[in-house]
Parts: sequence; C-alpha cells; structure tokens
Amino acid sequence: MYNELNQILEFIREIDKVKGIYRRTKLFDQSRYENDAEHSWHLALMALTLKDYANEKIDVNKVIEMVLIHDIVEIDAGDYIVYTTEKEEKQKKEKAAAKRIFGILPDKLKDEIYALWDEFEAEESPEAKFASAIDRLEPIMQNYYSNGEAWKKHNIHSSQILKVNRKIEKGSIALWEYAKSLIEETVEKGYIE
Amino acid sequence: MYNELNQILEFIREIDKVKGIYRRTKLFDQSRYENDAEHSWHLALMALTLKDYANEKIDVNKVIEMVLIHDIVEIDAGDYIVYTTEKEEKQKKEKAAAKRIFGILPDKLKDEIYALWDEFEAEESPEAKFASAIDRLEPIMQNYYSNGEAWKKHNIHSSQILKVNRKIEKGSIALWEYAKSLIEETVEKGYIE
Repeated sequence: MYNELNQILEFIREIDKVKGIYRRTKLFDQSRYENDAEHSWHLALMALTLKDYANEKIDVNKVIEMVLIHDIVEIDAGDYIVYTTEKEEKQKKEKAAAKRIFGILPDKLKDEIYALWDEFEAEESPEAKFASAIDRLEPIMQNYYSNGEAWKKHNIHSSQILKVNRKIEKGSIALWEYAKSLIEETVEKGYIE
Repeated sequence: MYNELNQILEFIREIDKVKGIYRRTKLFDQSRYENDAEHSWHLALMALTLKDYANEKIDVNKVIEMVLIHDIVEIDAGDYIVYTTEKEEKQKKEKAAAKRIFGILPDKLKDEIYALWDEFEAEESPEAKFASAIDRLEPIMQNYYSNGEAWKKHNIHSSQILKVNRKIEKGSIALWEYAKSLIEETVEKGYIE
C-alpha cells in the first residue's frame, strides 16, 4: 500500500506538466492561450452541464473522467491541431505517451485509466462520442468569440471546419446545430472564408 | 429546451474567468503561480487516483464534481488564503457569488450544483471531507517542492500549517501522515520555522 501511494503521488507530480502545454486557441476573453489543464477542467464542466444534450444515454461520470485524462498524453506527444494531416504519427506518439505516463500508476489504476483513454480515442462508445463532441465545441466557441482568430492564423477554410467538426453531430445533434450556427456567423461577418 | 441550452452556454462562458484567478502557490516546477481552473483539474485527478485512501466509503464521482466546481465562487469573491482570519467575510461573499453564478443555469442544474457546493463547504459528509483533504494536500506538495516558498512569503509558522491542515486527517489518515512528513521535512531543512 505504501509503495502504491508513492506511485500515485509520483503520477500527481508528473501530470503537473499538463499545465504547461499550450493550445492553439485562446481563452474566451482572448487574453492569452489556453493550456491543456484548464481546457480539460472546462470540458468536465461542459460534460456535467450539457449531459442532457447527448444523443444517446450516457454515463456522465465516465465522460467527465475521459475529458479529465484525455490530454495527459500530450506531456510527451505535444499538442496537435485538430486539422493535422499527421494523424498516424500523432497516434503512435500518444500511445507511447499513454504507456509511459499511465504506467507510473499502480497496475489496477494504470489499466483503468489506459482503457478510458483508449475508449476516448476510439470515438465509438456513446460516452466517447459525447466527450469528443464537447472537446470540439469548446475551441469553436473560443474561435467565435475571437472573430475566428485561430482559424485565420492557421488558414483553415470554413468547409474544413465544418467537415472536421461534423463529428460533434455523432455525440449531440443539438450541440452540432449550435456549433454550425457559430461557424456560419463567423463566415457571414467576413472573418473567415 | 432552447432557452435552457442558452443558459448553460452562458454559464460555460462565465466560468472561463476561473482561469484568470491566481492562487498563492506555484506549479510543482515553480515556474509561475497556479490558477483556480488548473488547480481544480489537478484535484479531480487526485480524487480519481487517491480514492482508496479515504477514511470512509465515498462516491468518488461526487468528490470529483465537488472539486471541479468548488472554486467557481472565486470569480466574484476572489481567492482567500487557507490561513485567512476573515472567515465570516469570505463565507458571505462566496455565498452571494454561488447564488449569482450558479443562478445563470436552468433551475434543476442550479439546485444540483449549489447543493454540491454547499455540501463541500460544510465539510461534513465523507465526500466533502475527502475533497477538502485533497484541496489542502495539493498546496502542501507545491510548498514542499518549492522549499516552503509560499509559507515563508506569508509568514506562516509550521505550528499554524499543522493546525490548519490537520483537517486532512478527517478525510484521510494516510494522506495526513504523508502531508505531515512533507511539512516536517521542510522544517528540518530550515526553510520554515
């Protein structure tokens, strides 16, 4: 038990690094870039408050756990933009990261958290589809409130935004309707093409 | 349903401000002060991984939700150090903040989250005692890894640290033993009195 506690405490120290991984999108007030820890916290609150908008019956606690752990792999793999073309490289790096970082934990916890991360990545279960939907929705809201700043900076065309984020629909038709309305308004205002 | 969704989305925008509330303690690597959103994310991961060390049987999902929402009131009330002597003022401000901010949500969600926050503040249920324990443990770990920096800066004597943080014991005897060992080592090394 004492050794197991030490392993967990070492994991708790290690994941502090998530606070230093910066994303491509800024806070809602545009004051600075957002880091992965803040982002994960915000998604957990979105899961808790938006749960009734999932297409399928979901275990919201599982969704919350998924979004809390989903970006820990970026300690080793770094942050890839959702529009990346290097998907294979990304998956390989993240898998190795998951093995190393979750491997700090005692076996039972390691297996639980690795399985949760794997399920999130597969985007197939109702919980994973909903977690993925809110993971995509938050940056769309942030982009909307910055008049499309990150989209402009990375030359993302609205057709690409609609294509890549259409996966939101699989988790929540209602949230996809909302996301579409934000993207369309950003186009109509002339901020993106 | 449409109006309710708008209320939730407004709440999601509002709580982005939690990312701008800075604490008195620094990240584990000491590079900068930690904000409330990152802190809450870290506590949620601590709850998930340290759950077996709670004194009593706990619903870990409830603990996770508690720590995720516990600092939202600081948007209006600001951050008080755990050693504050202005406890009454703090409680009054935080209660008003909870009413305003959770009040942005539709009634059912508002009542749920308010009740959760209230339970956390009362520090009486097994879940609230454990949530409170990890809320106190994280800054002790951060202080330990910075050779007592925040304690020194605010002139906190080790007797005060031991007294105020003894509440950890109510949630977890094992974690209190660990916390005490960190505090004692910081004293032995001569970083604090």
